[in-house]
Amino acid sequence: MIDCGEGTQMHLLRNHIKISRLRHVLISHLHGDHYFGLIGLISTLHLFGRRYPLNIYAPAPLKSIIEAQLEASETALNFELFFHPLGLNDIRIIIDEKKYIVEAFPMKHRITCHGFRISEKPKPIRINKELLPEDISIADIGTLLKGESVLHPSGEVKYDAAYHTLPPKKSYSYAYCSDTIYDPGLVPYLRKADVLYHEATFAEDMAPRATETFHSTASQAADIAKKAEVSRLYLGHYSTRYKDPTPLLHEAKQVFDQTFLSEEGNTIILEP
Amino acid sequence: MIDCGEGTQMHLLRNHIKISRLRHVLISHLHGDHYFGLIGLISTLHLFGRRYPLNIYAPAPLKSIIEAQLEASETALNFELFFHPLGLNDIRIIIDEKKYIVEAFPMKHRITCHGFRISEKPKPIRINKELLPEDISIADIGTLLKGESVLHPSGEVKYDAAYHTLPPKKSYSYAYCSDTIYDPGLVPYLRKADVLYHEATFAEDMAPRATETFHSTASQAADIAKKAEVSRLYLGHYSTRYKDPTPLLHEAKQVFDQTFLSEEGNTIILEP
Repeated sequence: MIDCGEGTQMHLLRNHIKISRLRHVLISHLHGDHYFGLIGLISTLHLFGRRYPLNIYAPAPLKSIIEAQLEASETALNFELFFHPLGLNDIRIIIDEKKYIVEAFPMKHRITCHGFRISEKPKPIRINKELLPEDISIADIGTLLKGESVLHPSGEVKYDAAYHTLPPKKSYSYAYCSDTIYDPGLVPYLRKADVLYHEATFAEDMAPRATETFHSTASQAADIAKKAEVSRLYLGHYSTRYKDPTPLLHEAKQVFDQTFLSEEGNTIILEP
Repeated sequence: MIDCGEGTQMHLLRNHIKISRLRHVLISHLHGDHYFGLIGLISTLHLFGRRYPLNIYAPAPLKSIIEAQLEASETALNFELFFHPLGLNDIRIIIDEKKYIVEAFPMKHRITCHGFRISEKPKPIRINKELLPEDISIADIGTLLKGESVLHPSGEVKYDAAYHTLPPKKSYSYAYCSDTIYDPGLVPYLRKADVLYHEATFAEDMAPRATETFHSTASQAADIAKKAEVSRLYLGHYSTRYKDPTPLLHEAKQVFDQTFLSEEGNTIILEP
């Protein structure tokens, strides 16, 4: 989960997302709208009897804030909280799971702030089941899955890898830029992402205000998406002055056509 | 405002309660369901440009928790936060306003915990407008409002206070017991309150569990209400095991008839 504003646990519940499955929580920065819901979520996990550790990746001060709150309620959690501090200029892989990695990169905001990119690892070669002989052995399938052809003892080709296998399925990636000033320095971290979420707090006519508050305009978000050659851009983090964010969408689409609005409760499928 | 769980600012907004009018926030104890929403509310007041101080009455650790969160976001509030620490055995008037006082008293829960009683101060004598002569002077009205009769220079009664005035309107009081084990020691603080809110986490068949967790049953809450001779009792803080708290109401009404269920969004008028 990336970021956890006040009321997140209620939203998860409402959207039928099982909080017990959460293992990693990434917090981009310590402005309240990005983390005030975390302590409530942790408390609920505790009340529900969670036993598995929870990993939290966030600027260092979050650890003492959470610990002070647990101490004030005299709560000894029945699961481990592992804090992984993110420093000001951290650019690194912070999570390395079997099927994906997560990279953090620094963004320019008023306080220490990170963007994240979640990338699926390369997927295995697939057997072309339609062309598979019924009598093939498990050992020979194993060889094909390594991308190697199966040979007869004589050296002749028994099963040709090029014929019997299909290329791996595409590995998708998602990049997330919560709060940031317009910063083309981000482009290398976002390159060719399938979906980029980028904040668009203001419309372009408020560009000076955006710069002043270390936020971006919709056009600027689209410019970043275009430069990074991402497949799709989702805008978000609209200022409350925009009761309807449609003008932000129109503005961004003039720069980058594959732009969409993110809305509460959205599910976005990375596969196009 | 008494207590401030996660999402309180959203509930206030939804119920059209102006948060700018808030001046005193009382926190009964530092379990999350009673204060996790406070930092979000404070942040929103800041963003809305509040200038007036906000008073917070709570166990001492809350101050450093809130301050650590403001520091992490590098927020210098544009209004003063005055923390008034409540100690373990504090029994005292914590707020003395023109029209009302608030008293705190200790409750027995797993951590330092206070109940509160808000009492209107005695109200002024009222002029009986129907019996008021048209030519009466402001000075004479002032005398009557002190409860004194107006005399002619001769000493004769011109306006009799007993005739021209009405007794003060009733002063109402509201007592609040958030989380507490069954404790008849609370009765003196609750005596003759117009409305008592008392937790009723469990039904009577769960009495051992209530004691173990420092909570009360609905019957126990009703027993306290009866002993304290309050006018009305509102139950709340129902365990999530009671999807419908009606059985708690029925149980309590057998002990104290004037029992009601509190529900989200309720407005309770103290005047019967």
